[in-house]
Amino acid sequence: MAAVKVHGPPLSTAVSRVLACLIEKDVPFQIISVNMDKREHKSPDYLKIQPFGQVPTFEDEHITLFESRAICRYVSEKYVNQGTKGLFGNNPLTKASIDQWLEAEGQNFQPPSINLLFQLSWLPRMKLEQNQEAIKENEEKLVKVLDVYEKRLGESRFLAGDEFTLADLSHLPNTQYLLSWTDRGELITSRKNVERWWGEISGRDSWKKVLEMHNAALPTKA
Amino acid sequence: MAAVKVHGPPLSTAVSRVLACLIEKDVPFQIISVNMDKREHKSPDYLKIQPFGQVPTFEDEHITLFESRAICRYVSEKYVNQGTKGLFGNNPLTKASIDQWLEAEGQNFQPPSINLLFQLSWLPRMKLEQNQEAIKENEEKLVKVLDVYEKRLGESRFLAGDEFTLADLSHLPNTQYLLSWTDRGELITSRKNVERWWGEISGRDSWKKVLEMHNAALPTKA
Repeated sequence: MAAVKVHGPPLSTAVSRVLACLIEKDVPFQIISVNMDKREHKSPDYLKIQPFGQVPTFEDEHITLFESRAICRYVSEKYVNQGTKGLFGNNPLTKASIDQWLEAEGQNFQPPSINLLFQLSWLPRMKLEQNQEAIKENEEKLVKVLDVYEKRLGESRFLAGDEFTLADLSHLPNTQYLLSWTDRGELITSRKNVERWWGEISGRDSWKKVLEMHNAALPTKA
Repeated sequence: MAAVKVHGPPLSTAVSRVLACLIEKDVPFQIISVNMDKREHKSPDYLKIQPFGQVPTFEDEHITLFESRAICRYVSEKYVNQGTKGLFGNNPLTKASIDQWLEAEGQNFQPPSINLLFQLSWLPRMKLEQNQEAIKENEEKLVKVLDVYEKRLGESRFLAGDEFTLADLSHLPNTQYLLSWTDRGELITSRKNVERWWGEISGRDSWKKVLEMHNAALPTKA
């Protein structure tokens, strides 16, 4: 099998989502560097394959795709019979349930969690001022979402049912960074069912391999 | 065919998205009232079927689903052989391309457009103060997205190719409200290809029927 290509830095949350999916599906991949510090994601050549200037972009012999969740759906369907087989369900009803929770991640979990990461981790690293109102507003939104997850994960092992699926996988990057790069990890660890779920999904081999790629990409400490 | 159920007010952007899809697919539906002024979407009974307290919720004989884009994907797949047949593509590659642009709508177009609608239309109606900084920030984001669309729609008739698909349909509600309920319609009409596309997608019978439902739901003017 020829390796598929993923354009973008492994430390990006959206790139990490796609890498975790490819590893779950046993799909060999090659990472094509996009140096965002040098604004290569806004270069004319890159904009030809990703008009919004975002990462990742995915390529195989048939198609060039952007949007991490669309890439994950495509990969899961194309390689349905290998790797983690139920990642996007086995019939229209399980698929619809997974898609529902994947959309909930994209629409409800992603906005407040990425905004919190921006405020609590990226702005201080860039020595820029935080917006305390934005922090408060996004933390309140995320609390409401996690309260729904806490109840749901008290009723089922994973978000879409008894199996690990794309719906769970899609939460890995932002949750990891909330825990590792901010002081708001208690949002996860103070919720019994969410913490149990996090332990289970972050302990998967796929995510451990993505974390190894993160570590390799981080600047070496002096 | 027993009518499927859609819980939520037709004037909601997310409910409108699902209604347009059901009409495109010739699927009979019944609307179940959820009075948001009376906070029925936060009632214990409603939270049992939609734990985030959002609209719409969709029900057929097999499944209860939330998240408008997940509902649209399910409906398009289940009723693949009726109504507008290519709404979610006819093969894995067209489906992936539609899904990519549907995700671009959900991740790139929806956030700034819904925030602008909130600031420019809903806050004044509720006689609450607008946040000028939020208006500026979201308008700038939306301009960038629409510039990408303008280029794309100069190359292809619709977002995902030569056919009208879920990717276009998903833009109908927010774009309609930007044009009808705010003074920022020029964002659409000043872009030649976007305006041509908007004329084509908003002129479809499905959307005209949704607009009739909107008009019937609006309070009568004295």
